[in-house]
Amino acid sequence: MKKLVLTGAAGRLGSYLREPLSKMCDTLVSTDIADDIGTLYQGETYIKGDLASLDDMMKVCEGADMIVHFGAFVDEGPFEQLLGPNFIGAYNIWEAAHRHGARRVVYASSIHAVGMYPKNEFIGTDVPHRPDTFYGLAKCFAEDLGRMYWEKRGLESVHMRILSCAQVNNARALGSWLSYDDLIQLVTRCIETPVTGFSVIYGVSDNDRVPVDNAKASFIGYRPKDNAEEFAAQVLAETDPLDPKDPGHMCHGGPFAAVQLGNLVMADMNVVDDRKKT
Amino acid sequence: MKKLVLTGAAGRLGSYLREPLSKMCDTLVSTDIADDIGTLYQGETYIKGDLASLDDMMKVCEGADMIVHFGAFVDEGPFEQLLGPNFIGAYNIWEAAHRHGARRVVYASSIHAVGMYPKNEFIGTDVPHRPDTFYGLAKCFAEDLGRMYWEKRGLESVHMRILSCAQVNNARALGSWLSYDDLIQLVTRCIETPVTGFSVIYGVSDNDRVPVDNAKASFIGYRPKDNAEEFAAQVLAETDPLDPKDPGHMCHGGPFAAVQLGNLVMADMNVVDDRKKT
Amino acid sequence: MKKLVLTGAAGRLGSYLREPLSKMCDTLVSTDIADDIGTLYQGETYIKGDLASLDDMMKVCEGADMIVHFGAFVDEGPFEQLLGPNFIGAYNIWEAAHRHGARRVVYASSIHAVGMYPKNEFIGTDVPHRPDTFYGLAKCFAEDLGRMYWEKRGLESVHMRILSCAQVNNARALGSWLSYDDLIQLVTRCIETPVTGFSVIYGVSDNDRVPVDNAKASFIGYRPKDNAEEFAAQVLAETDPLDPKDPGHMCHGGPFAAVQLGNLVMADMNVVDDRKKT
Amino acid sequence: MKKLVLTGAAGRLGSYLREPLSKMCDTLVSTDIADDIGTLYQGETYIKGDLASLDDMMKVCEGADMIVHFGAFVDEGPFEQLLGPNFIGAYNIWEAAHRHGARRVVYASSIHAVGMYPKNEFIGTDVPHRPDTFYGLAKCFAEDLGRMYWEKRGLESVHMRILSCAQVNNARALGSWLSYDDLIQLVTRCIETPVTGFSVIYGVSDNDRVPVDNAKASFIGYRPKDNAEEFAAQVLAETDPLDPKDPGHMCHGGPFAAVQLGNLVMADMNVVDDRKKT
Amino acid sequence: MKKLVLTGAAGRLGSYLREPLSKMCDTLVSTDIADDIGTLYQGETYIKGDLASLDDMMKVCEGADMIVHFGAFVDEGPFEQLLGPNFIGAYNIWEAAHRHGARRVVYASSIHAVGMYPKNEFIGTDVPHRPDTFYGLAKCFAEDLGRMYWEKRGLESVHMRILSCAQVNNARALGSWLSYDDLIQLVTRCIETPVTGFSVIYGVSDNDRVPVDNAKASFIGYRPKDNAEEFAAQVLAETDPLDPKDPGHMCHGGPFAAVQLGNLVMADMNVVDDRKKT
Amino acid sequence: MKKLVLTGAAGRLGSYLREPLSKMCDTLVSTDIADDIGTLYQGETYIKGDLASLDDMMKVCEGADMIVHFGAFVDEGPFEQLLGPNFIGAYNIWEAAHRHGARRVVYASSIHAVGMYPKNEFIGTDVPHRPDTFYGLAKCFAEDLGRMYWEKRGLESVHMRILSCAQVNNARALGSWLSYDDLIQLVTRCIETPVTGFSVIYGVSDNDRVPVDNAKASFIGYRPKDNAEEFAAQVLAETDPLDPKDPGHMCHGGPFAAVQLGNLVMADMNVVDDRKKT
Repeated sequence: MKKLVLTGAAGRLGSYLREPLSKMCDTLVSTDIADDIGTLYQGETYIKGDLASLDDMMKVCEGADMIVHFGAFVDEGPFEQLLGPNFIGAYNIWEAAHRHGARRVVYASSIHAVGMYPKNEFIGTDVPHRPDTFYGLAKCFAEDLGRMYWEKRGLESVHMRILSCAQVNNARALGSWLSYDDLIQLVTRCIETPVTGFSVIYGVSDNDRVPVDNAKASFIGYRPKDNAEEFAAQVLAETDPLDPKDPGHMCHGGPFAAVQLGNLVMADMNVVDDRKKT
Repeated sequence: MKKLVLTGAAGRLGSYLREPLSKMCDTLVSTDIADDIGTLYQGETYIKGDLASLDDMMKVCEGADMIVHFGAFVDEGPFEQLLGPNFIGAYNIWEAAHRHGARRVVYASSIHAVGMYPKNEFIGTDVPHRPDTFYGLAKCFAEDLGRMYWEKRGLESVHMRILSCAQVNNARALGSWLSYDDLIQLVTRCIETPVTGFSVIYGVSDNDRVPVDNAKASFIGYRPKDNAEEFAAQVLAETDPLDPKDPGHMCHGGPFAAVQLGNLVMADMNVVDDRKKT
Repeated sequence: MKKLVLTGAAGRLGSYLREPLSKMCDTLVSTDIADDIGTLYQGETYIKGDLASLDDMMKVCEGADMIVHFGAFVDEGPFEQLLGPNFIGAYNIWEAAHRHGARRVVYASSIHAVGMYPKNEFIGTDVPHRPDTFYGLAKCFAEDLGRMYWEKRGLESVHMRILSCAQVNNARALGSWLSYDDLIQLVTRCIETPVTGFSVIYGVSDNDRVPVDNAKASFIGYRPKDNAEEFAAQVLAETDPLDPKDPGHMCHGGPFAAVQLGNLVMADMNVVDDRKKT
Repeated sequence: MKKLVLTGAAGRLGSYLREPLSKMCDTLVSTDIADDIGTLYQGETYIKGDLASLDDMMKVCEGADMIVHFGAFVDEGPFEQLLGPNFIGAYNIWEAAHRHGARRVVYASSIHAVGMYPKNEFIGTDVPHRPDTFYGLAKCFAEDLGRMYWEKRGLESVHMRILSCAQVNNARALGSWLSYDDLIQLVTRCIETPVTGFSVIYGVSDNDRVPVDNAKASFIGYRPKDNAEEFAAQVLAETDPLDPKDPGHMCHGGPFAAVQLGNLVMADMNVVDDRKKT
Repeated sequence: MKKLVLTGAAGRLGSYLREPLSKMCDTLVSTDIADDIGTLYQGETYIKGDLASLDDMMKVCEGADMIVHFGAFVDEGPFEQLLGPNFIGAYNIWEAAHRHGARRVVYASSIHAVGMYPKNEFIGTDVPHRPDTFYGLAKCFAEDLGRMYWEKRGLESVHMRILSCAQVNNARALGSWLSYDDLIQLVTRCIETPVTGFSVIYGVSDNDRVPVDNAKASFIGYRPKDNAEEFAAQVLAETDPLDPKDPGHMCHGGPFAAVQLGNLVMADMNVVDDRKKT
Repeated sequence: MKKLVLTGAAGRLGSYLREPLSKMCDTLVSTDIADDIGTLYQGETYIKGDLASLDDMMKVCEGADMIVHFGAFVDEGPFEQLLGPNFIGAYNIWEAAHRHGARRVVYASSIHAVGMYPKNEFIGTDVPHRPDTFYGLAKCFAEDLGRMYWEKRGLESVHMRILSCAQVNNARALGSWLSYDDLIQLVTRCIETPVTGFSVIYGVSDNDRVPVDNAKASFIGYRPKDNAEEFAAQVLAETDPLDPKDPGHMCHGGPFAAVQLGNLVMADMNVVDDRKKT
């Protein structure tokens, strides 16, 4: 692997991926809208760029073998706010990848593309979309776009529908948790798998209470190691009885399934940056 | 029904729908980007407006019971060209409908949302999206958006995936033809059905060679009357042997399945305006 | 066919079936809890009996080839009220049929066995049960019972899930109507089909808006002739906009899907006895 | 269409197809193991040949656009007896078609490829094989072979699973009948459909009691016109009660489902040659 | 959790559950038809009651958060014998739970609700019912009842289809065994899962030869630890060749699938009470 | 178990199975076309025989309880070359087993029966056949044959679709590897399972990247222990980027999916005999 591109490199998950990705290739091109992202790793270069600008993305993706696309507005918000980074940004990435002849896009999709399914439906990777927010709708858009670029242009993509990659401090997270270590394994496997075509895979750890089905993505070889059950006793002790008729509790999307469209969700969740130091 | 809105009223199909829709309501608000659309029917008013402008659509949808949404750039084209009318336009319609408390959007979706399926798969209304073009991708976007507005906000929508509403002059059209009369029946039923929730239905006549399955939309009561088989002998006599390995012949999307993304298709097809005069 | 049994012979549907059934066999044994059912048809005898009494049903079913089982408390009601006629009664019929070596039970099941499915799901005959009332629950019970008697004892049964066999005076009935003529065809085919094993079939006319799928019962050869669409214009004109979030409007069970469990439904519906005179 | 080949031209169905096929092409090459087949139709030539000989079939298929393959030992029999004409013969036809660059094989497959399914399962064209006899097993073999030649070599094939093309003189035939006229329509559509890839379609008339599902082959446009129900009253009157636990009555394959493997079936059925004279 | 109710507390499984349940709540109300159940655990009270009496069950369920319902006649028997405890008893529990505002019923359902499926069909939790006995039919009844109380009244329930919770002394048990420890984990998870709606889950250990599929219940987080394979060598050595055409060997229900309806099964099996002492 | 038969005993896999099979029965009859197979194990006898000869196979199978059928031409080749050993040979084995009253055939089927499915479809054991070669077609034939002998004659069979039982020296093998130890476990379980009816199971180790689904065969209790991931780093380092549009890389069949029909594949793969010495 000569060159990898990482978008969203200044974000919580993106910044965590910089080091492992830098080790998988000769050159890692990190990009984000920040002016800089601190000390660079061996082989890493940083290019400031706006996802909503095709010109910027053309510069970023030049000569890339694969693009690991984590850049986005990472929360629910008004459609107009997500239009640039999440919708147009996805188009720009795939189009730039295609024009430069890249082989694959590895994309941070999300459970929110299918967040309106009730939790007692064990959903596979091929259920029709049921987005819970504009944020989820952008993920649907990118998945359909990725499928089309594969079928029409031969550009591969893997769409990792991440459930919740953050600390386990609520009942939903007992099922939906993706540990940082498992995130790295997942991204690694999506990159190193020799052929993927268009594929979808859920990003979730090996939790006892995992509510989604990765069977159809088995060939990618993602085998998570962590399990949120270690937090279950404490979390359940602190959890008041939930209302099964509330989509926020009963649906895969959790609080996104209950929020009014366009309102912030994660901004209110005090997501702590609890990554292990690497 | 007090007020209906028709977008794309100056287009080929839209202009054909004006008269029947005007008879189904007290007021028909027709809209398009043209300066005018000629003589108005009884009860019809015309408002010039740009789909890409939420302000315009807010004006158009004021007080509407339902919106019949046919407005779009009606061909494959570069993503940037479709972004305004087809993507943002769809959002604007649903958002305006929601803000004004409309009950339903009846939407001209398209077979191109699933155009990459091979023709010998009889596809139902709930198969996952497989768009064949940016044009089809916009239809996927609007379908996912419509499902979300139903599940989150209770705004109904029916997505009519029209196959090909034009003269029958090629082999594919023997299966995909939607006659103008059947189009009117289809739109009428989508409006008058008391409850629809989120629904998808194929817009196709009762052709012998119909390649799609409307079973799951049966409750809408669409029963087409026309059959392209009357044109079969002549069309087949004029058809050279086709290549079953060519997506343009083997896939539901026809020429859209074969076109390079972003290139015009219909502009080259010499679609004749062969509507019966009403 | 030597002997047929008809239960519920004094009921609205049962009394309509007496004449055609009497013509299909040497002896028709009609039974109900009424003291008498008026003038008997050629070959018909009447035995007063209580469904809840196995002794009574043993007498009724003696020597029968098939039992056409329409007897029941025909409305939602408290569980305790339905227990005797609808639950125990079903057991008694199957057990008596088995002990007397009858070949088949043709059973008036109901859409209410699956009434909680939303109408925009086109449900087949093999979806899992979703009863909407105790009335529907009794139909589920009899279907499972019938399957078991087939698999363990070789007693055939056909379960006709009748949608609504009454005049078309509301929007739901445009899809759910079963005409009296089609009812007769349906019962006739269920009797004359040489082998049925355990089968389920929906009892509904050939309505444009039919919301259920009889494909898997095709071998029975039921092809309804009537279509409620003839009543559509008038019914829709008289129908106020419905609420798609109300199970009474959105679910297959209609008012049964909305009623409080145990409360009467049909008693309030003023079902008119509008049978054609035979 | 320049040249069509018809195998089994001396057989009951083959001889019926000679005239209509001769009208669809410049040259019809008929073949069978008989010395001659009587007077030839306009444009027809006859070549005696043995299906089990690849050399013979190479001669027969030279220059053909399509092969209509009805040749076989048409009954159950010992495996050794069917090996030549039915198994090796199918290979020879596909191989000769491939070597000569033919576009399609239209094949007389049979319900007996799936004859062990019970009749109250409405089987589609894509259920896994469940042959009832060596005769049916040969049809399974040819279907799998045809799929492989399509996927590996681009040679199209349509596999017409004929139910029972003979007079209606038993209860099973009320559902399984294929009239001669419908047979001709079926073969015609399989030939004239512009692209088919690998497809399977049931050969059965529009009987009320049709037990199989052609939905997935809809694009071929086969719409049968005849209906065995016209014979129902007489046939049912003459039918003794059947045993639903007997595979010969309960399974799609009828008497083939009950026969001991290797024993003749049709030889005992006195199939009358009741074709309308053309 | 303030108050749990356990029915069938004097039974083999029920008595095993008393201690662990008593530790999960402030008050455990145990009930059965026995006069007493011996020494009570910390926080446990005992109320003698008849499942067939709604009055009794109303007293038992007063103030309960959840009901763990194991009470039943635990064997096949005549319908009349099971009617009270198994059918009416289930109704009484759900009705009492509803009237008292309980949140959930955790129910000891059984494989015998689907016991007629052959073992080489890996059945999920959503296959249609195929009961093998009146005992299994009562489980079907309770599952349908539970779904209805959830959909109409918001009362949750989890239906644990227990396979065989007894010593492993026959070939079937190598697949169907549920160890006592895994039983406790299963019940615990069904109670502590924050939301369940209506759910079905198989009660079986992590046996190599497990014949049922719990995928759709994954969100409940049941991960059994025991494996009957440790008994395989001895059990298989003692097992004579079985008859694959015998439902008692080929079907999930085992001896229940073969028994004459209404005859005892477990009474003849010498089920040893081999619980580990706690 | 008194007598087992092993065909293909001189082959790479067959010779590996001789010792473990000899320990599972009183007499192991090994057979192949070689003159001898070297030193025999305790209880083993050798009979030279030709699969294509029913007489030979009748001698070999006399008195057998089960036949473990590994004999075949083990590579792609011309149809004529495979006809004897792979097609007729399979018939001979089943027929001989039936005539001698054997209970079961345990058959070395192959992934090549379904090799044309793309790798990102996680295929179960019940997908329709999609053979990639004549070699795979012979496996399809034997599977259909085995199902028929079970349904018509009660002869059980388990069809082990082996993926690749050879050293892991290419990217595909990371998913498709079956270790020798797991092969032995698999064969052992297929023999010792008390009842199997007709079953299909994939022969593959517990690889991280396993691309096929054995869920429906769970009751057989095959739980592989080995995992090709230990070879992943080295293999991937040596693998050039693959072409996802090449069936040889994208399809389950690997090089068989890409080869011209009839051409050798394995002969060119230098399959090393790397069995552990036993």
